[in-house]
Amino acid sequence: MTRLIHQPDPLLDLVFERIVDVPQELVWAAWTTPEHLKHWFTPVPWNTVDCEIDLRPGGIFRTVMRSPEGKDFPNVGCYLEIIKNEKLAWTNALGPGYRPSNPSTAEETACGSFFFTAVILLERHQKGTKYTALVIHKDEAGRKQHEEMGFHEGWGKALDQLVAHVKTL
Amino acid sequence: MTRLIHQPDPLLDLVFERIVDVPQELVWAAWTTPEHLKHWFTPVPWNTVDCEIDLRPGGIFRTVMRSPEGKDFPNVGCYLEIIKNEKLAWTNALGPGYRPSNPSTAEETACGSFFFTAVILLERHQKGTKYTALVIHKDEAGRKQHEEMGFHEGWGKALDQLVAHVKTL
Repeated sequence: MTRLIHQPDPLLDLVFERIVDVPQELVWAAWTTPEHLKHWFTPVPWNTVDCEIDLRPGGIFRTVMRSPEGKDFPNVGCYLEIIKNEKLAWTNALGPGYRPSNPSTAEETACGSFFFTAVILLERHQKGTKYTALVIHKDEAGRKQHEEMGFHEGWGKALDQLVAHVKTL
Repeated sequence: MTRLIHQPDPLLDLVFERIVDVPQELVWAAWTTPEHLKHWFTPVPWNTVDCEIDLRPGGIFRTVMRSPEGKDFPNVGCYLEIIKNEKLAWTNALGPGYRPSNPSTAEETACGSFFFTAVILLERHQKGTKYTALVIHKDEAGRKQHEEMGFHEGWGKALDQLVAHVKTL
């Protein structure tokens, strides 16, 4: 039932899927602990220099990404669903306490001038974890912009970094 | 903890609070069952002619309001939090499956060109139920527009209709 609510629409949504050889619990920790997240969230040479996580529905998810030139890009959103080790959903269309976001603010983030909801699904797999990221946009332009920014490469590199990081724990 | 996430901001938010002499369970039923909701949701002479409720996080909350002149105004949003008999949160900034809403669509709804999140809180009270509605806007203009549309009078009349309706059950 939980899964059926997300029916990816190829015109509007982006899906990233991969099997990783680390347990669900470590992937979950990497996504939900600021100290871990900063290690992997932005593909080098970008950096995540700050991260705030209030892990409850309506709680803040804030990151600050720093470009190789040293420019900071803050991103603020809120969590929507938290099922430990299984499902994490958040959006930048709402801020903390579910307050609708101001589009003009979003335009100044590294994510560009569009809103999205991200759903991370983790499932046990014989080789470790099946990792699925579903990114839901409001329109085709948002999906296209995100795709052209290098969605698949970016999420792939970040996941490589995540796996490498949790293996050091 | 659940309550602390909502700190009303008088510039951005509207709060409606009242004690009603009916039990929490009936107020909850009135908010979460299409057949009940149609009886009270829009102050007469407006009507709610259609209602769709998928009561789970990310599930659709859709209503169609009909003006006295017979014009229909559809509203689509999704549920964010559902704590039976206690808390119901939804927003029109996201559609079903948490897809960010398109502002151009919202402009054509009876709610005007703004997004909001509504949180209904029900608490047991010696006289029945303490009913609190918190409506969260993205900016001051949204709050002002909603207030000038007659927020307090409208929510008051609708609650009168809700109470009258559940007393017939």
